Amino acid sequence: MDPKTPEIGFIGLGVMGRSLSGHLVSAGYDLRVTARSREKARGILERGARWVEFPAELASQCDVVFTMVGSPCDVESLYFGAEGLLSGLRPGTLLVDMTTSSPKLAVRISKEAKTRGGGALDAPVSGGDRGAREATLSIMVGGEPSEFERARPLLRLMGKTLVYQGPAGSGQHCKMCNQIAIAGGMMGVCEAMTYARHSGLNPDAVLQSLSTGAAASWTLSNLAPRMLAGDFKPGFAVKHFIKDLKIALESAEEMGLRTPGTELALRLYLQLVQNGSEEEGTQALLKIYSRIAEQGRVDVEKV
Amino acid sequence: MDPKTPEIGFIGLGVMGRSLSGHLVSAGYDLRVTARSREKARGILERGARWVEFPAELASQCDVVFTMVGSPCDVESLYFGAEGLLSGLRPGTLLVDMTTSSPKLAVRISKEAKTRGGGALDAPVSGGDRGAREATLSIMVGGEPSEFERARPLLRLMGKTLVYQGPAGSGQHCKMCNQIAIAGGMMGVCEAMTYARHSGLNPDAVLQSLSTGAAASWTLSNLAPRMLAGDFKPGFAVKHFIKDLKIALESAEEMGLRTPGTELALRLYLQLVQNGSEEEGTQALLKIYSRIAEQGRVDVEKV
Repeated sequence: MDPKTPEIGFIGLGVMGRSLSGHLVSAGYDLRVTARSREKARGILERGARWVEFPAELASQCDVVFTMVGSPCDVESLYFGAEGLLSGLRPGTLLVDMTTSSPKLAVRISKEAKTRGGGALDAPVSGGDRGAREATLSIMVGGEPSEFERARPLLRLMGKTLVYQGPAGSGQHCKMCNQIAIAGGMMGVCEAMTYARHSGLNPDAVLQSLSTGAAASWTLSNLAPRMLAGDFKPGFAVKHFIKDLKIALESAEEMGLRTPGTELALRLYLQLVQNGSEEEGTQALLKIYSRIAEQGRVDVEKV
Repeated sequence: MDPKTPEIGFIGLGVMGRSLSGHLVSAGYDLRVTARSREKARGILERGARWVEFPAELASQCDVVFTMVGSPCDVESLYFGAEGLLSGLRPGTLLVDMTTSSPKLAVRISKEAKTRGGGALDAPVSGGDRGAREATLSIMVGGEPSEFERARPLLRLMGKTLVYQGPAGSGQHCKMCNQIAIAGGMMGVCEAMTYARHSGLNPDAVLQSLSTGAAASWTLSNLAPRMLAGDFKPGFAVKHFIKDLKIALESAEEMGLRTPGTELALRLYLQLVQNGSEEEGTQALLKIYSRIAEQGRVDVEKV
């Protein structure tokens, strides 16, 4: 690998991936991409990226391949499937999965990549579509420290806070911590805003008071105003958050942990999906509280 | 009342009240105080405040009286008891309760004060002992707007963010929103830190990643480092937070609301108290998660 002009692959051209692959092209890197359909890749192809038919080809042609897809299931077939990344892996090639996915799966990928003479990092992110656009993401990295150093100049183009978290899977574990912290905080903010409305307060005045004290949070500053404006557009979609919370709880259970706040948040979000909010932003959790209030006293364990 | 030299009373010389009354003396105001024992007031008396025997006397001698005591129960007897503030209230005198207390009680105090020709504000605060010391509190005010304007120059000496929240009780309602938001956020942070430890991550690296993304919060930045250092000193004591959450839930119930995240947080804190943590800081909630983890799977509804 010539450190000055690595060939870079990118798979996953959704909201996040489009921005991130764009940063790589803008920095002058030679980018190869593939996607479920060539149409999805049109934007980046027009900016000079080259189309490749299969993930396996990318892994055989590139020095570093980034992936950012939907779920652990997608990651598994992308890496382990026929024509998948691992089947074509060229010795020395580094695979970097930025999907929020299972820590266990990250460990499996890392082992298999090493067996084939390559390497792998798990490098999920926090900061949303805006963080991706502005390259201000927080990127949490698991894997070999030397591989992290190798990927660092590229990750630097996508994020502002790059933190090495430990061996393979540690990036994903850290992302689970992130989602767990958000889940509790989101309940707190939604319940506070619901209380504010029902008690006849002016929620804007409440936000002003709360955002300068011990209740201050990113969620309060960024999502509470959207809640109050009735703006439930994603940001970060409910269905993705549910996926993440399921991974977190599964992983916690494997460690013999209980995280009752996170469990409650997942129950509330699953209920929210039944009301048709899965494509909305996570701030739509507010709606479940109005529903609970309308019903009067309900058995919350069943919610 | 001469607007340039109002006589000011202060009752409640605990951690918060000591700092706040000190700011008033520092600003040159003539302060009168009373407390359960003269010994408790020694510091402020040495700085020139005058001792008065009963709350009723304060209310008859002063233009504005501030109170900051422990619980709604303390507030009730301080205001409505024999020799209480209301019994001695001089027409024109303004009573300002900065205790975190019940919105309903604030309404009762306001009505009774008006009946007697005086006025009342509820003005609970957020920002903790440090905010009190540095006069950077967020102060949430309920009552008549004109009374708020009258108290503003004095409140300005104690806090940085003064927000008028609405009629009597609205300051307390806003404080309930604040505590509700904190309760959910605290569970999130404790569960995230517990997960971090159990998954073998370096919690300091996790904090670094989380504090720059969507999981960022005052609790994460200020209390998670104390949790990780095993520092459970208050800050804000568990027993006071429990008192606040009970008021919040009672008040929510009266409005026909459900706040299941807050309910769960209260259950966890009550369990924590059984383990002897009531005088510790709210960050001690972390301990309950280690306990749950040690026990393996438990019925969290009973926790």
